[in-house]
Amino acid sequence: MSEIKSTNIHWHEGDIGRDERWKALGCRGCTVWFTGLSGSGKSTIASAVEQALVNQKVNCYRLDGDNVRFGLNKNLGFSADDRAENIRRIGEVAKLFADAGVLALTSFISPYRKDRDLVRQIHGEAKPSAIDFIEVYVDTPLEVCEQRDPKGLYKKARAGQIKGFTGIDDPYEAPDKPELVLKTDQLSVEQSVRQVLEMLAGRKLIELKK
Amino acid sequence: MSEIKSTNIHWHEGDIGRDERWKALGCRGCTVWFTGLSGSGKSTIASAVEQALVNQKVNCYRLDGDNVRFGLNKNLGFSADDRAENIRRIGEVAKLFADAGVLALTSFISPYRKDRDLVRQIHGEAKPSAIDFIEVYVDTPLEVCEQRDPKGLYKKARAGQIKGFTGIDDPYEAPDKPELVLKTDQLSVEQSVRQVLEMLAGRKLIELKK
Repeated sequence: MSEIKSTNIHWHEGDIGRDERWKALGCRGCTVWFTGLSGSGKSTIASAVEQALVNQKVNCYRLDGDNVRFGLNKNLGFSADDRAENIRRIGEVAKLFADAGVLALTSFISPYRKDRDLVRQIHGEAKPSAIDFIEVYVDTPLEVCEQRDPKGLYKKARAGQIKGFTGIDDPYEAPDKPELVLKTDQLSVEQSVRQVLEMLAGRKLIELKK
Repeated sequence: MSEIKSTNIHWHEGDIGRDERWKALGCRGCTVWFTGLSGSGKSTIASAVEQALVNQKVNCYRLDGDNVRFGLNKNLGFSADDRAENIRRIGEVAKLFADAGVLALTSFISPYRKDRDLVRQIHGEAKPSAIDFIEVYVDTPLEVCEQRDPKGLYKKARAGQIKGFTGIDDPYEAPDKPELVLKTDQLSVEQSVRQVLEMLAGRKLIELKK
């Protein structure tokens, strides 16, 4: 084995702690959980927030259907149990990212209050201390979502081709006390993004560059 | 809403890609998978590598029993199916971390070749392109592990108090072509860490500061 003459390799017994990691890397993790109806604009806004943060060199990562449904959660279907397990796993993974110092963004309908509250609880009970969980309610009226219908899903649900569709024949339970509400029928995407960034800055989770 | 006068908030249609993210953040993700018997030194080495990398400001994160078993995988037991699912989920999560630009370290016995090969495959088939999967075989003879027995588990397994214990009454299938083999009975922890770091540097996954 060739020798490295001089490196800054040091370690101590026991694992590296969250504070030590975040301080060394100059990062701060948390979970920003977007919830709302299909077509509400969750993914558009979350994606734009992600891009804005990456441009500001904030470590962040978005969990969404594309990277979760066909990977980690590909063995889950749409039964009540599987839907709950879907959200639970996403919550656990977001918590791991946040612990790692990554600002985790999640973009899922997550229609049931108890599932979201479980994820909040998981973050609150994280060891050695709670991790910030920020619930962003993308509050777009059903009529607006149905009019947008970007994937044609509402049309199929109304025609009875999709069963158990949130807002049509399955309930959406709005958050009681979300950290932020975005009324996307009254805001541009840019305005929504700014509200999210200002809220995060107000909570000292990011610094906004001026 | 108060206005931010000047920010570098920009976004484009569609999601941010892996290349764009890694370039903007100056990071590069991959998965470094430590496998070996209980007591082989996996966790000690992985933890020391993690600390060395954090000190060099490399975004990295270690998945291990502590943060996975009681969270994401707490609904899994020790049946053959559950053991396979345990490793599959860890592999999927490591892939997500790597995609995010984090150097993911995993420290699990992961005794079965087919389970590890599935994780390798998951990385190889990642979209839009393969993610590096580095298998590190912590090759410590059973006798040495059993002598160390840091958690007293071999003693219990020999006494029949634990069933299906890897190396005693359940097989450990050594990797066929691991990217690195560490013979910890012949290496100090520091030497093992250096071998890992040199291997990662040789693959351009990290830069070693001299």
